[in-house]
Amino acid sequence: MKKQTLSKILKVFLTLQWAKELPRQGFIALGFKRNEADSVAAHSWATAMLVYLIGEELRRLGEKIDVNKAVKMALFHDMAETIVGDVGTFVKGMAKGAFAPIEEEGLKWLVAELPGNEEIIELVHEYMQRKSIEARLCKVADNLDALAQVKGVPAAKDSIKYFKEVYHLTKFDWHKVAVEMILNDEVEPERNWQKK
Amino acid sequence: MKKQTLSKILKVFLTLQWAKELPRQGFIALGFKRNEADSVAAHSWATAMLVYLIGEELRRLGEKIDVNKAVKMALFHDMAETIVGDVGTFVKGMAKGAFAPIEEEGLKWLVAELPGNEEIIELVHEYMQRKSIEARLCKVADNLDALAQVKGVPAAKDSIKYFKEVYHLTKFDWHKVAVEMILNDEVEPERNWQKK
Amino acid sequence: MKKQTLSKILKVFLTLQWAKELPRQGFIALGFKRNEADSVAAHSWATAMLVYLIGEELRRLGEKIDVNKAVKMALFHDMAETIVGDVGTFVKGMAKGAFAPIEEEGLKWLVAELPGNEEIIELVHEYMQRKSIEARLCKVADNLDALAQVKGVPAAKDSIKYFKEVYHLTKFDWHKVAVEMILNDEVEPERNWQKK
Amino acid sequence: MKKQTLSKILKVFLTLQWAKELPRQGFIALGFKRNEADSVAAHSWATAMLVYLIGEELRRLGEKIDVNKAVKMALFHDMAETIVGDVGTFVKGMAKGAFAPIEEEGLKWLVAELPGNEEIIELVHEYMQRKSIEARLCKVADNLDALAQVKGVPAAKDSIKYFKEVYHLTKFDWHKVAVEMILNDEVEPERNWQKK
Amino acid sequence: MKKQTLSKILKVFLTLQWAKELPRQGFIALGFKRNEADSVAAHSWATAMLVYLIGEELRRLGEKIDVNKAVKMALFHDMAETIVGDVGTFVKGMAKGAFAPIEEEGLKWLVAELPGNEEIIELVHEYMQRKSIEARLCKVADNLDALAQVKGVPAAKDSIKYFKEVYHLTKFDWHKVAVEMILNDEVEPERNWQKK
Amino acid sequence: MKKQTLSKILKVFLTLQWAKELPRQGFIALGFKRNEADSVAAHSWATAMLVYLIGEELRRLGEKIDVNKAVKMALFHDMAETIVGDVGTFVKGMAKGAFAPIEEEGLKWLVAELPGNEEIIELVHEYMQRKSIEARLCKVADNLDALAQVKGVPAAKDSIKYFKEVYHLTKFDWHKVAVEMILNDEVEPERNWQKK
Repeated sequence: MKKQTLSKILKVFLTLQWAKELPRQGFIALGFKRNEADSVAAHSWATAMLVYLIGEELRRLGEKIDVNKAVKMALFHDMAETIVGDVGTFVKGMAKGAFAPIEEEGLKWLVAELPGNEEIIELVHEYMQRKSIEARLCKVADNLDALAQVKGVPAAKDSIKYFKEVYHLTKFDWHKVAVEMILNDEVEPERNWQKK
Repeated sequence: MKKQTLSKILKVFLTLQWAKELPRQGFIALGFKRNEADSVAAHSWATAMLVYLIGEELRRLGEKIDVNKAVKMALFHDMAETIVGDVGTFVKGMAKGAFAPIEEEGLKWLVAELPGNEEIIELVHEYMQRKSIEARLCKVADNLDALAQVKGVPAAKDSIKYFKEVYHLTKFDWHKVAVEMILNDEVEPERNWQKK
Repeated sequence: MKKQTLSKILKVFLTLQWAKELPRQGFIALGFKRNEADSVAAHSWATAMLVYLIGEELRRLGEKIDVNKAVKMALFHDMAETIVGDVGTFVKGMAKGAFAPIEEEGLKWLVAELPGNEEIIELVHEYMQRKSIEARLCKVADNLDALAQVKGVPAAKDSIKYFKEVYHLTKFDWHKVAVEMILNDEVEPERNWQKK
Repeated sequence: MKKQTLSKILKVFLTLQWAKELPRQGFIALGFKRNEADSVAAHSWATAMLVYLIGEELRRLGEKIDVNKAVKMALFHDMAETIVGDVGTFVKGMAKGAFAPIEEEGLKWLVAELPGNEEIIELVHEYMQRKSIEARLCKVADNLDALAQVKGVPAAKDSIKYFKEVYHLTKFDWHKVAVEMILNDEVEPERNWQKK
Repeated sequence: MKKQTLSKILKVFLTLQWAKELPRQGFIALGFKRNEADSVAAHSWATAMLVYLIGEELRRLGEKIDVNKAVKMALFHDMAETIVGDVGTFVKGMAKGAFAPIEEEGLKWLVAELPGNEEIIELVHEYMQRKSIEARLCKVADNLDALAQVKGVPAAKDSIKYFKEVYHLTKFDWHKVAVEMILNDEVEPERNWQKK
Repeated sequence: MKKQTLSKILKVFLTLQWAKELPRQGFIALGFKRNEADSVAAHSWATAMLVYLIGEELRRLGEKIDVNKAVKMALFHDMAETIVGDVGTFVKGMAKGAFAPIEEEGLKWLVAELPGNEEIIELVHEYMQRKSIEARLCKVADNLDALAQVKGVPAAKDSIKYFKEVYHLTKFDWHKVAVEMILNDEVEPERNWQKK
């Protein structure tokens, strides 16, 4: 590998380190303390994991889905936030579209010198469109990961209602089922090894 | 006081609570860990304190300055960040002016229902212009407070050079003196009561 | 500005930085985790903001109040804690007055070399007396800011009763109204931009 | 999707949430404070990102590498730690192989009820063997991510020497180049937008 | 004291510093955020304090108990975790005894060069057996300290049931009484100085 | 055990939980961030551990020392801070003795209802006198534990000089040796298992 290319890759990699420390800003507006909010990095990992787990099942059920693509989309979906910050739904809403180009611009700036940066830019763009099955699956995972986090923070319990307002975007019938199962404690981590 | 007015004030006040948990995002890009970055609220207090301390001295020296106005300007100067987030110098730079209206919009949205909200909006606007002596003093204090913070975080020491790049905005000759005194350890908190 | 004066101001300013890290100790006795407790700096900012918002309304309603003075009083009201620490109501209570002089002494020590330090000392002293309308307003804001914080921390919910025990000090009828509105969720931050 | 399958997936997903809070224990032994240590989740994301960035370049250079497989391997490589904890190199070293089966056992227990769990188990197993190009690439990324973190924490600077002791495992000549570039500040995040 | 012996003692002491930063990992599996989990060091202190307080009372009641021994046992009981980490009940359960030797090995490695290390090793071993009155008392204190912590974290309230499952190990009738008193709020810290 | 006695013990125990969250306030004045400062509880454990390790060696060398007493003294030495807070050397210094009675008063209030509370009060009193060998040993351990903490926080490195100013209180010749060994990196935790 040419040292120059390696250098460009490492420069992006070192910049991405910031995502480990950036709290997801929208959660603070829901009543979270700073240390209760996930980092952008940790959220991205959990989202990618859920995309893989559900994506594989959809594939087994015969859906036409590219799980590898969906996993990478999840890994990249909040990458721009490392640069432009997690500005929260409000700015996005208020700016009525004026912010989306800023976020895309940030992503392009971040990966500008990377060889093969088209795939990253295209996958994030596709995610933003919420059209393909991979994009919709990423959005479900993004939503369920936020729900899992909110459920553990009592100060934010009034905000749980907002989590049901993305069904019209994702259009998977099992999305609603998943939200209800988590909310109603029908599914929880296994802890009975405590008893053993 | 009418309950309705009180309610509008308290609504803004409860929203401002978020500023206690929001880390100053730009510092994370300088290498700070999440908990090393000041909150927007704490930064605003320290800035207002320094504005008062220096402003009073300027007044005693015969400068024509409204210290009360400057103190309030400092209190309000990052208020919009409670809503739009501390998006960092990058977005602002990249967006080349496209972001300033978003920030002003956020502030207006936040104080929309407050009786007498004009003063807040006008003081923040004046601060953004960096023209009046009060606005320039606020900028010095904003800058020195960031410097005080960076000095305590070794991972960010390479970033100290950026702190000298606002002299052309503030135009106080003692601004540079202050930066140098802090950087060169010519001034430090008094700790010799440890010896007593 | 003389370098020597600037140096004295910066020395106080650098000392005040500690207030950004000091948790309000009394809250830990209410069951808060360390990172759930506000810093002295963040609390002081929120208190000053509320003093401004309510103070302006009182002024508009014809009350004889110096809002600028009240704002500065709020900024300074816990300044001594930067030095002597937030020792908590207990020590103050137990010491039956023996501690107040320690706190005043700490403040005087902190600002000793500042030109024009009388205003700070006088405003804090006036705040301690709870007599003037500005001092009473500061106490309301100090109380409501603590309440806003306690409301978000479930472990401290049993402590909310203590927040009603300062009405006799502040003597504003709307103080009680404000406490009830916050406790009963009659007023909350606006979050409906989430839906947009 | 059958509700029962969805339930099994969500159960694993909710368990994986713990990885967001688990500090990487080995770093505390290097002198890190608790909040300076990355979470297992954030580390896994950064590792997967670097695997993708370098993997794509290797592929373009004609190496026979399955980047999608490598990315998933990186996502999964510390998954067992969610259950068994990040026990640190010491236990592993001391136990001289006795711990590896515990970690594999933990992973199997975690994914036991998942349909299609073989891929996860196999990829983690392959990673442990350090033989395939994908496994070696994951190990490089794991190593560089740790180095990026250590570099920002002065208390751990004496530990940087340990990061050179895995070259014999990864066997990529550019691995050493990358370590040196990061250590010698030849590559750093782009911050010159501060100047704009 | 010989410098060499002092050096060996300080080496262990500096290693024990890690226990101040290590969160008790099992609590994260109960839903705790990282900063809500006690450190191993803080837990050990609180356990030793309770062992002393109850132990002295048992002695006054005529029980044959060596309180000094019990206090030291409590101080040492999680010492090995500084090295091997707080691996959580799961690994221990899953490994069905395979982990206990690892923990004992870690302790022996830690104190290997200390003159008089037998007492430490023997007391921890005795604690593990849960036979002697001192070991059973330590286990009660270990259990009540965990309960006190869980009670303050709402996300973990479902886990309180697990705290009743050690009565058969400790075999003190008042252990159950203590658990119930804490759970039912029959005993709480004194806070009425707030009113004074 | 009588339920009433148990209740009194648990009340003190639940109050002591606050010590897990209280940062040692003096460290913040040395430039520590909030989360870099040890808790009072963690510091007390580390102090007790070092007292045990050195105390046993002194005993083996023929010194007339009651190690059990010294260990308990260390456990109790900062107990009053749970109530009165860690007010820092400054207040103590400034108050020129006015604070010592407050601290003793706080301790007495905390343990007032405990049967057998004399031992706690006496041991803390003896510690304050710095006369007995056990009290001097506790002071050395208190000092070395602070030094171990300061060494890991670069922002506080200027403060290390203060740690040499207690030699005249402790009067052990090896105290100075220990400070120098830690400062000069002559002793460090064993980390070479990383290499294995």
